[in-house]
Amino acid sequence: MENSLRIGIVGATGYVGIELVRLLSMHRRFNLTRLVSQSYAGRDFAEVNPAFARLIDLPLSQLDVDDLAENCDLVITALPHGVSSAVVPELLERGVKVLDHSGDFRYRNVAVYEKTYKLSHPRPDLLSEAAYGLPELYREKIASARLVANPGCYPTCSLLALKPLLEAGAIRTDSIIIDAVSGVSGAGRKADLAYSFCESDSNFKAYSVTGHRHTSEIEQEAGFLAGSDSPLTLTFTPHLAPFKRGMMATVYADLLPDFDPASLHDLYRKAYAHEYFVRLMPAGQVPETRNVAYTNFADLAVFADVRTGKAKVLSAIDNLGKGAAAQAVQALNLMAGLPETAGLEFAGAAI
Amino acid sequence: MENSLRIGIVGATGYVGIELVRLLSMHRRFNLTRLVSQSYAGRDFAEVNPAFARLIDLPLSQLDVDDLAENCDLVITALPHGVSSAVVPELLERGVKVLDHSGDFRYRNVAVYEKTYKLSHPRPDLLSEAAYGLPELYREKIASARLVANPGCYPTCSLLALKPLLEAGAIRTDSIIIDAVSGVSGAGRKADLAYSFCESDSNFKAYSVTGHRHTSEIEQEAGFLAGSDSPLTLTFTPHLAPFKRGMMATVYADLLPDFDPASLHDLYRKAYAHEYFVRLMPAGQVPETRNVAYTNFADLAVFADVRTGKAKVLSAIDNLGKGAAAQAVQALNLMAGLPETAGLEFAGAAI
Amino acid sequence: MENSLRIGIVGATGYVGIELVRLLSMHRRFNLTRLVSQSYAGRDFAEVNPAFARLIDLPLSQLDVDDLAENCDLVITALPHGVSSAVVPELLERGVKVLDHSGDFRYRNVAVYEKTYKLSHPRPDLLSEAAYGLPELYREKIASARLVANPGCYPTCSLLALKPLLEAGAIRTDSIIIDAVSGVSGAGRKADLAYSFCESDSNFKAYSVTGHRHTSEIEQEAGFLAGSDSPLTLTFTPHLAPFKRGMMATVYADLLPDFDPASLHDLYRKAYAHEYFVRLMPAGQVPETRNVAYTNFADLAVFADVRTGKAKVLSAIDNLGKGAAAQAVQALNLMAGLPETAGLEFAGAAI
Amino acid sequence: MENSLRIGIVGATGYVGIELVRLLSMHRRFNLTRLVSQSYAGRDFAEVNPAFARLIDLPLSQLDVDDLAENCDLVITALPHGVSSAVVPELLERGVKVLDHSGDFRYRNVAVYEKTYKLSHPRPDLLSEAAYGLPELYREKIASARLVANPGCYPTCSLLALKPLLEAGAIRTDSIIIDAVSGVSGAGRKADLAYSFCESDSNFKAYSVTGHRHTSEIEQEAGFLAGSDSPLTLTFTPHLAPFKRGMMATVYADLLPDFDPASLHDLYRKAYAHEYFVRLMPAGQVPETRNVAYTNFADLAVFADVRTGKAKVLSAIDNLGKGAAAQAVQALNLMAGLPETAGLEFAGAAI
Repeated sequence: MENSLRIGIVGATGYVGIELVRLLSMHRRFNLTRLVSQSYAGRDFAEVNPAFARLIDLPLSQLDVDDLAENCDLVITALPHGVSSAVVPELLERGVKVLDHSGDFRYRNVAVYEKTYKLSHPRPDLLSEAAYGLPELYREKIASARLVANPGCYPTCSLLALKPLLEAGAIRTDSIIIDAVSGVSGAGRKADLAYSFCESDSNFKAYSVTGHRHTSEIEQEAGFLAGSDSPLTLTFTPHLAPFKRGMMATVYADLLPDFDPASLHDLYRKAYAHEYFVRLMPAGQVPETRNVAYTNFADLAVFADVRTGKAKVLSAIDNLGKGAAAQAVQALNLMAGLPETAGLEFAGAAI
Repeated sequence: MENSLRIGIVGATGYVGIELVRLLSMHRRFNLTRLVSQSYAGRDFAEVNPAFARLIDLPLSQLDVDDLAENCDLVITALPHGVSSAVVPELLERGVKVLDHSGDFRYRNVAVYEKTYKLSHPRPDLLSEAAYGLPELYREKIASARLVANPGCYPTCSLLALKPLLEAGAIRTDSIIIDAVSGVSGAGRKADLAYSFCESDSNFKAYSVTGHRHTSEIEQEAGFLAGSDSPLTLTFTPHLAPFKRGMMATVYADLLPDFDPASLHDLYRKAYAHEYFVRLMPAGQVPETRNVAYTNFADLAVFADVRTGKAKVLSAIDNLGKGAAAQAVQALNLMAGLPETAGLEFAGAAI
Repeated sequence: MENSLRIGIVGATGYVGIELVRLLSMHRRFNLTRLVSQSYAGRDFAEVNPAFARLIDLPLSQLDVDDLAENCDLVITALPHGVSSAVVPELLERGVKVLDHSGDFRYRNVAVYEKTYKLSHPRPDLLSEAAYGLPELYREKIASARLVANPGCYPTCSLLALKPLLEAGAIRTDSIIIDAVSGVSGAGRKADLAYSFCESDSNFKAYSVTGHRHTSEIEQEAGFLAGSDSPLTLTFTPHLAPFKRGMMATVYADLLPDFDPASLHDLYRKAYAHEYFVRLMPAGQVPETRNVAYTNFADLAVFADVRTGKAKVLSAIDNLGKGAAAQAVQALNLMAGLPETAGLEFAGAAI
Repeated sequence: MENSLRIGIVGATGYVGIELVRLLSMHRRFNLTRLVSQSYAGRDFAEVNPAFARLIDLPLSQLDVDDLAENCDLVITALPHGVSSAVVPELLERGVKVLDHSGDFRYRNVAVYEKTYKLSHPRPDLLSEAAYGLPELYREKIASARLVANPGCYPTCSLLALKPLLEAGAIRTDSIIIDAVSGVSGAGRKADLAYSFCESDSNFKAYSVTGHRHTSEIEQEAGFLAGSDSPLTLTFTPHLAPFKRGMMATVYADLLPDFDPASLHDLYRKAYAHEYFVRLMPAGQVPETRNVAYTNFADLAVFADVRTGKAKVLSAIDNLGKGAAAQAVQALNLMAGLPETAGLEFAGAAI
């Protein structure tokens, strides 16, 4: 495997970290060299995660930025917000490229970040440099970035749904409602009664009904898509459903009077004709989360509700796939000058 | 158990029928006398449904309206639309009261019915007579009706969410969006690959995205709630989630400028202060479908999104409970002059 | 509700405690007066468990044995082993009858208890007094007991399967294998990664493969059923499956040569002809856990494998129902001189 | 992709067929050329299975053995028993190698086949030629076979558990009990109420309690492993649990007096030291089905129960993976002279 890039993962035993290991262990041009986990340092990754026996022969280690700098060309950080912002600059200073999974480098406006996360940002200077890691929006910037901020799962799912409408100027930009549903893995890997099997199975509920952090992230990027420097204001409600992986956004927006509802499917067909990972369903069909589970695909469908003048867009991803780790691999491919689809061309767990 | 009402169920081996048997077997003032099932006639109910061994000792019989008229004071029909409209009039003619679960008698305007169900109605004269069986809306009419049309599950869930807003004139009536999720039992009891375990588990999808039949039913009653004779026009999207029973509607509407968002919780508190089966969550908390599973309760929460000027209402019911069979028992109690809560005061399957 | 017995529950917010509240809230001859919870003392039960809003209007309180003695005729303790053995004697001394859910009073031989639970027993004198709360085995002793030790879930499920074979002397008593499966609620209500949704859903595993505590409890009672003062020695393997409630034991034993395999179903039919809560499936049919979920029923089927000379018994219960809280209510009925079935005659959550 | 083998699949839209397509679409040395499906002939595979959009661009066709012979070097038949036995000979006659998934070519003794499947076999002459496709047992025979009979899922799971014990002569060969659990996909892809979501979720049951067809298949191969020409007689009970994919066998057998129970783990360690796909758990740990889901791995653990003198072996596979399609790919690799692990070195869906 000559010429392969050496990759380190910081936060390798959370759900995003494990999924990164799974995907990178199948990738032939990246070479995992370091797995950092504060909780399990000193043990083998495959001992902690027996699904990886025979496949991964690497120890889990404490965070050591010098060691990472020496042994990795690129480091993926899967750390909590507020922690990433401290670690990432140290890696950059040592000449290592970084792809970060937290919210710390996703914002262009530090005030919005600080209001959203209720933290002051130690390195606001890096915000303008960081690329927002949604390849369908920022392919070129990602390719040349030394710091990529991997988008949130809900933003990924929602922005892919909104992009054609916003770029075409087809909707009233103040009319957007995003009603979304995530699998339980979105809550992360932790011992918490609220996410125990008996409290989650056979159950459905909303959460963070008026103040989910991903709202401001979606608003920022939706504003850019609408051609504005300012964020849009929109309505977002996340829900939790009893499956491990998967996410669906149902997006509503008022079509402008001069937009022909009959052209809606065509708008999406053209917008995504050349995007490998965005699959528009045949007209009239709906996406199902199982068809994208464990993959980097986003399946979309769009409907015009002529009675109400609204567009309805359905967008299905895997919250840990296109919503996190698989999208990170897609961005890594760009950063490494590889074909964007490298290591990601497979079907998931539909049955 | 003297003075108890004799009840027959037509369609006793579908999911609504089975749930009716379960609820009525716990009810001390109703006496099940006839269980009709075309598919299983001749066998014992408890043989077909072993969960009822020791509890139900009744055979399943063919439909025979004379026999029903002789042995039942009231018949519950759980039949497909188009079939009910043929059977119900025959029962009424024989002096039997009827509570019907189909869409056949839920509409005031026969044209809307015929457009929605793509059927011509054989007895439009009965539409004005039938009571719409949502006790929180039509308590008195139900109590004196000889024909009650049990509401659909989505309409029940949605209308309870909308009632305070519409009656208070708090929202723009053309701004309503209902995003709803049902458990798989909503699809009925049938051999169908789409509802098989392997195609439904770990999956989430929308269906009938622009033309679900319950839309026109919600619009009719929402219009009445808004004080109009005409239906409203609103947006409705149903989804399917991997649990057996439960339903959640997330309802969005634009608050009118003169409505004080801070008074929203109070509006709901007052509106439902005397409704036993509608439980408003404490401010800031959200309903979970598991808390209403296997019961007649509807759990509600309401939020003002001050950034967007919208009200968000969350409404959780059991699609087979308050959305079908338990609500039918509530209506039956009214029809029989019993306390509305008789046989329905229990907790469900929260854990 | 005059003449109703006043009941207190200690440990009211664990899964067994919550299920006791659910069942007792439907029972017309018991009156819940005290709910004790160290974790949530000071809050209302229905605030902590919103499924009980409208149904339970009681606060959660700290443990206070004097207060319990004053306000309860009978106290149910749902506490960890080692804790019960300290609390129960204090209640008995104050003249309160106790039904205990822990392993602390299930053993006749204190040495077996101490080996099994790795604790010394502070009150071994109470072991001979305590009734083992399996009504199908100890109906009369329970009725007159002041202390009842509610059986474990696996012992209940297994002993009902074994009773006819052992009492008839039909099997080699050293040949018994019990392969059992429990729903996740069996692990109790706690924040534990191993029982989180994402680590439990779509998964199946064994646990405590050679040393589960219930083994010695089954062996004690199986010995008694075999007419011996000594425990049997048998093989037991518990597994965990992805559902909330339910338990299945598949029991294997070698039929003795002089036992006619063709008479096996008949043996069970006669043995349980008068047991309301034990339902023998029609010959050739198998029990399903969903048919007993949320009930006190045990569904059994028995098969002779003539090729191997073995009996196979299938036994299905709800681990929190007949395996814990519902069986406790059955015992309470006996202790209170009520019909054994009072408050327990209902179907569960089969669909 | 020169020199890649051209593969056809007959029965491409059942669960085994779909999983074969998934695995082969990731395999770089096999080239799918024909997908046969009687039910969906004329449509595109990816249209029927939207999870494969972008990945599979092949139509589904009617069965045409001449066309298959012309376009495939090897055909995989995933057909019902009784159908395979008619189709397979026609393919062999045309010089095509075949890997068959049915029971039709798994037996050495036609009488056992005919008794088990209640069919007469049209080509008993092929039974001696066919290789039993369990590479851990018949690696060399598979490599040179023109007809391979892929084993059943339960036999694969059970035989891997039994092999070390039987080859070492460590157990009484008449004492074996196999208690096994399968996910619902084992029932195949069909519209059947018994496997609907609402009748399968939150449920656990046994089935085919005394006469499952896989019993005689396990007995045949267990006999060979024990060094005998005759089958063993053993006890087998399959169960169904609410997950899509996964299988666990818990195997019990009496250790012979001269076998040292303390050496049990070592026996397994040595027996499987060179088998890539059989992963022995560290001593004291148990396998979980999620760790092998969507893979070709079998995870094993073995325990000595010194109290009863029994060995307990736990064996976890994916019923559609190592139990069907992935094992087929392993055999295909052998047939094609490729490394046995080609295209199968990845982790599955543990989280």
